[in-house]
Formats: sequence, C-alpha cells, structure tokens
Amino acid sequence: MANKKMTIIASKGTLDMAYPPLILATTAVAMDLDVTIFFTFYGLQIIKKDNADKLKISPLGNPAMPMPMPIPALIATLPSMQAIATSMMKSMFKKHGVATVGSLLELAKESGVKMIACQMSMDVMGIQQSDIMEGVEFGGAATWMDAAAESQVNLFV
Amino acid sequence: MANKKMTIIASKGTLDMAYPPLILATTAVAMDLDVTIFFTFYGLQIIKKDNADKLKISPLGNPAMPMPMPIPALIATLPSMQAIATSMMKSMFKKHGVATVGSLLELAKESGVKMIACQMSMDVMGIQQSDIMEGVEFGGAATWMDAAAESQVNLFV
Amino acid sequence: MANKKMTIIASKGTLDMAYPPLILATTAVAMDLDVTIFFTFYGLQIIKKDNADKLKISPLGNPAMPMPMPIPALIATLPSMQAIATSMMKSMFKKHGVATVGSLLELAKESGVKMIACQMSMDVMGIQQSDIMEGVEFGGAATWMDAAAESQVNLFV
Repeated sequence: MANKKMTIIASKGTLDMAYPPLILATTAVAMDLDVTIFFTFYGLQIIKKDNADKLKISPLGNPAMPMPMPIPALIATLPSMQAIATSMMKSMFKKHGVATVGSLLELAKESGVKMIACQMSMDVMGIQQSDIMEGVEFGGAATWMDAAAESQVNLFV
Repeated sequence: MANKKMTIIASKGTLDMAYPPLILATTAVAMDLDVTIFFTFYGLQIIKKDNADKLKISPLGNPAMPMPMPIPALIATLPSMQAIATSMMKSMFKKHGVATVGSLLELAKESGVKMIACQMSMDVMGIQQSDIMEGVEFGGAATWMDAAAESQVNLFV
Repeated sequence: MANKKMTIIASKGTLDMAYPPLILATTAVAMDLDVTIFFTFYGLQIIKKDNADKLKISPLGNPAMPMPMPIPALIATLPSMQAIATSMMKSMFKKHGVATVGSLLELAKESGVKMIACQMSMDVMGIQQSDIMEGVEFGGAATWMDAAAESQVNLFV
C-alpha cells in the first residue's frame, strides 16, 4: 500500500514558528509518511543558507510567550529585548535536548522530506536561488496544490 | 468524477496574511478544485467593502519581515513605521507583478470560489451584512464544517 | 459507518486565537465528528489550570484588530493598552453571548473532545503535568500524527 502523505506550508520565519513544520515533518517521515514542506513568505527565512540558526523571536504582540518576569510592552520594544527573548528561548530548547532549527532542517533533508521554496515569494522578497540551501526545489502554489490534493494531511503554519 | 474540494479558513486581516488564502484559492480553482473560503475574526477585514486594498502590516513582533535596514523595535512603534512597512510591501508586490488583494478577491469571486463570512464574528465585531462585499454568503462554523468534511484539503490561515 | 474525524493543533495562547480551536472543536463534536485537540507551544496556556480566562491579547503587530479608535503603535506599547484591548475583546464577546474560553473548554471536555498536551513543549516551558487541567492526556507529535492520519480534517491554529 502506498504511504500516506502530508504537506505543510511554512509561512512564518520566527524562531518559534520554524519549529512546528520541522518537528511535524521529521516525526511524520519517521512514521513512513511522504512529506512535503512548501516554504513561502517569511518561511523562506528558514531555508536561506546559514540562516536557520539566526532566526529571532519577539515578545511584542505575544502576551502568551513565557518570560522569566512580566515585560511591559514599552520595555519590550527596547532593542535588547528581542535578543534576550531569542537567546532565552534557544537556551530553553537546548536545556531540554531539543535540536536546533538548523539540525532539524538537516534531519528533514537527510530523511527524505521534500522541500520546495515558493518562487513567487522569492521574487517578491528579492531572494535568489543561490541564496537557498542545497537540496531545496523551486515551485509555485500549483506545485503545492498537486501534492496537497494527493495527501491525507495538509497544514498551514 | 467529482472535483476535489478545498476549504480555507481566513482568520487574519493583515496585508501579508490576506495573500495566502486568495493565492491558494485562485490557484486551486484554476486547477478545477471546488474552493470555499470561510472569513472569520480579523479575516473579515479582507471582505469588508472597499477595504481589501487598505489592509496594513506592522513590523512589530515579526523579526522575519524583510526590511531595507534593521529597525529597532522602539523605532518600529513610531506611527510612521506601519505606513512605511505597508507601503514597502505593496510596492514589492507591485514591482514583481503580483496582483493586489482587491484584484485577487475579484478574481476569486469571478472564478467561482465560494466565500462565506462568519456571522458570529460579524456580530462580535459589530460588522453588518451591508458592510460586506457583494457575492459573499453568511454562515457559521457548522457551514464550514459541512464543507470541510467533504473536502480533501483544509487549511487554517 | 464510523464517524468522521478532525484534529486541531492549538499552538497560540492569546485570547483571540484560543477561540478558533475550541469553537471549531465543539461545533464538530456536536455534528458527530471525533475531535482531538493537540495543545502545543503557547497553546498550552489555554489548558493550564485556571488560566483559560486569563489569556490576553495585544494590539501590537496586529493592525487588523478592531479598536474603538486608531491606536498609534507607540501608545499601544503603554502597559495599560494590553489590559484595555483584552478587556474590550472580552466585553465584545460577552455582549454578543459568546461563551468564555473557560466555558468552551469545559464544554469541549464534557462533550468528548480528546485533548492532548504536548509533553515536549511542556518540558521546554517548564510546565508540570500537575499544572494542566484535569481530563487532558499527555503525548507527543507522534500521538497527533497517528490521529491526523486517520482524520478527514486537520488544522494548525
């Protein structure tokens, strides 16, 4: 019987929202699903060369982000706060043995997750094919649609 | 054989996140899928009359947004920055021949994408049926659920 | 015939984005679907004990949020604005007879929605099993994947 299939659209480029597509994709492929990730909009930041481990988060506009102490929004705008929040989240992941975004990306590639970069988004954002990591294909919404129509699970992250 | 079907829940009302539902829907309908978009929460902003091309984005809280230069968060709070970010993204889309949100909305309507506005969200936000563009139907979560249960692809944007 | 099935990944912990998973889940279960919600990342805030009705929203970074008057972003950073926006949205929901997040959560539990907390996210965020409300099970991405592969509808919120 053919494997079940999953597609994930990765549209966010923050450190926190880079994790769900990669964790779900690597889990699914380990369970013998065929997985395609379509990187579009800000999600392209994840697959730019040497950028996966430079993604940032911001506490601004997300009162659900756990912080060691309540941060008033005005203070959260200080330049140092984004760096602090990013560094804090990275250390929380590391402390609990969760792989970095870069490592998950490598794992996804090695384990056969098909990765497609959205050419239209690249054009709009001025990203060249040479800016994108090796092993990623290029396509459009129709490429994703073809895969999604044959998949049992499709997610937009 | 009956066409494959897709539903998209459009829950965001920013300029950037208005694009994915409309691009995916117009692509899908061109590939002969039956498509339903369910506009709810902030997504109602997209289908308010004469509002599609007034949607805005904010660089706040999204360090993955490409900007011509790094913008410290404190400066990003200045009233002019939201206008600058919105204008910059619009010109990036225009320069690369990507249709406006308003044009994509018209295309979606003309090509038979079924559009449903969430009546409960409208009530909560004080939006009248007369505030919504022509050609949109009104329904609730159960209306979406009926369509989703018969669809091969369902996305929450 | 077996019921149709739906899974929802609830990854956000703000007041506004806590609603979609719970409204869709309670609607679906009333229509005889089997529903699983997988709470992960910030979504864990929804199921922390006595926390559902303490969730907040921020106007920062979301220019699509309806406010009684335009709020310049700099003013939106004032500590009081998050409280004002949260209180305003709660009163809008209440005025229109929409249940609180806490009530919807109870309804979901009583009506048989299966709720799973992501153990890995809990570990990363330092959340104990005793911090989570009664009736929630614990699992990982593979637990969700098993349910999703057998479901007709899967959403990432």
